[in-house]
Amino acid sequence: MRSEFELIRRHFVRPAPGTRLSVGDDCALMTPSPGQELAVSTDVLVAERHFFGNTDPYRLGRKSAAVNLSDIAAMGARPRWATLGITLSPAQDEPWVEAFARGFHEELRAHGTDWVGGDTTAGPLAMIAVTLLGEVPPGQALLRSGARAGDDIWVSGTPGDAALGLRFLKESLPLSEEDRRYCLARLETPTPRVALGLALRGIAHAAIDVSDGLLADLGHILDASEVGACLELARIPRSMAMLRQQALPDWPLLVLSGGDDYELCFTAAPESAAAVQRAAAAADVPVARIGTVTDKGDRILYDGDGRPMDMAWQGFDHFRNA
Amino acid sequence: MRSEFELIRRHFVRPAPGTRLSVGDDCALMTPSPGQELAVSTDVLVAERHFFGNTDPYRLGRKSAAVNLSDIAAMGARPRWATLGITLSPAQDEPWVEAFARGFHEELRAHGTDWVGGDTTAGPLAMIAVTLLGEVPPGQALLRSGARAGDDIWVSGTPGDAALGLRFLKESLPLSEEDRRYCLARLETPTPRVALGLALRGIAHAAIDVSDGLLADLGHILDASEVGACLELARIPRSMAMLRQQALPDWPLLVLSGGDDYELCFTAAPESAAAVQRAAAAADVPVARIGTVTDKGDRILYDGDGRPMDMAWQGFDHFRNA
Repeated sequence: MRSEFELIRRHFVRPAPGTRLSVGDDCALMTPSPGQELAVSTDVLVAERHFFGNTDPYRLGRKSAAVNLSDIAAMGARPRWATLGITLSPAQDEPWVEAFARGFHEELRAHGTDWVGGDTTAGPLAMIAVTLLGEVPPGQALLRSGARAGDDIWVSGTPGDAALGLRFLKESLPLSEEDRRYCLARLETPTPRVALGLALRGIAHAAIDVSDGLLADLGHILDASEVGACLELARIPRSMAMLRQQALPDWPLLVLSGGDDYELCFTAAPESAAAVQRAAAAADVPVARIGTVTDKGDRILYDGDGRPMDMAWQGFDHFRNA
Repeated sequence: MRSEFELIRRHFVRPAPGTRLSVGDDCALMTPSPGQELAVSTDVLVAERHFFGNTDPYRLGRKSAAVNLSDIAAMGARPRWATLGITLSPAQDEPWVEAFARGFHEELRAHGTDWVGGDTTAGPLAMIAVTLLGEVPPGQALLRSGARAGDDIWVSGTPGDAALGLRFLKESLPLSEEDRRYCLARLETPTPRVALGLALRGIAHAAIDVSDGLLADLGHILDASEVGACLELARIPRSMAMLRQQALPDWPLLVLSGGDDYELCFTAAPESAAAVQRAAAAADVPVARIGTVTDKGDRILYDGDGRPMDMAWQGFDHFRNA
């Protein structure tokens, strides 16, 4: 216990401006901004399930922060503080811990977030539990339940790239050196869309981050809002790496159901389209309109020619879970 | 993932009064009390390290909440919200999850705390990461660094009982049925001293909860406050179960270095002794004065006759870590 405590002290304790008291007491103490609501997110990553045991620890540290920052982003909240509960297996030696801590801390700092405390234990397998706290003015959080019939459906970035990287790792899909590097970066160091979430306050009606796949996560918005949707596959932006996989018979599966992209999917009134584009430009993230919210419960996928696709929405979603 | 999500939904989602939005969005949303500081604690429990795999899941649920409530108590903060990140192994079937969730929730509710969200994943081994958020008026938190030379050192309850229960489990130490039940309850369902922590605001100078053993945790206060201490073994209250182990040669080790008691150890000015006793009576917890803070760096243990003990402070502390 003592040596673990020392390990943490050495690698994790950094000055946290705006935090009155960090590691080294029973709790961290923070001063919230007056009049804000607190947004809280917890995510757990388990070795061999959410990441490969040999994943670069610096990238894993960044991703461990990023997946939680992404949840905060999807609420339109401003991330402030993070805690880390981590189980270290014998494979996680001190250089591993140092690199992980560096990545974790850098990703947090890039989004104005302080690491304020946590707990380290030994165990047979690496496990990472991060809790992130953010702040949002009352009533301004972007909920899943706010989508309205007639809204445009938007997505940031180019969904499916992380899944393409995963397929390379698991099935040795042939990719050029450039595409491989790009897709693995999307998989291992996703970019939480914090600035976009903040810029969409007061504009978007509903938002979610795409962690389980576009259809699955948009489905959560539709469920919570009790609405349907028409989605056009051809409108979903694809990266150059994905476009070069046009011959892959199931590329739509990667785009529609690939997880781990951590892009934002959101809805907004059609008359807000220009405001959405301005918000995206301010946040320096490309966004695209990919469909429409309907008042019927149906979820329909269209191909590029406006024809309903053979494989239905549920099919893609089911395929992913199979 | 889907079935896990359903499992959580079924067992964990409860109405949380005072929480605007709980499970079912990207984040939980809470409204902090105006003008308070936030206290945050994270603890990780790993199967076969912090609990036996066959531990009663209801009791484990209670303890998972209690160990974090205890950290909040040691700050003199009021616990408000909890998140749970949990990895479930195949051994954790649905009845296990149901019982765990019931215990977790009951312990939180007993201390006015809402469960607001979390994350569930499958893994090879059960792992539980809890983050607890509390509130405390600015400047009133009980820090480890506030002890002053001349302070009395106090402890609540009867330290060592959890360690006695652990010794029964690990080494089949003979205990009466009654003592066994008592010690196992102290080990498996410790009582976080939340009411005592709140009552000690403005009275105690420093506080910590006893999770690693009395000497080790008091040592953290002494380190942070840059002071020494004289401690009298004979003054440390012992339970009837512990008194009946008088013949056990190393009973002092259990009392001084046994972990998992989750009592509070704190310091206060001698002139506050009556106020401490009133606070303890109001919180319905027995407390005892067990020593004195000194301005020298020394840490000295006295036996019942006022003689320094053969085995030094460091000896007991080292023995525990051996």
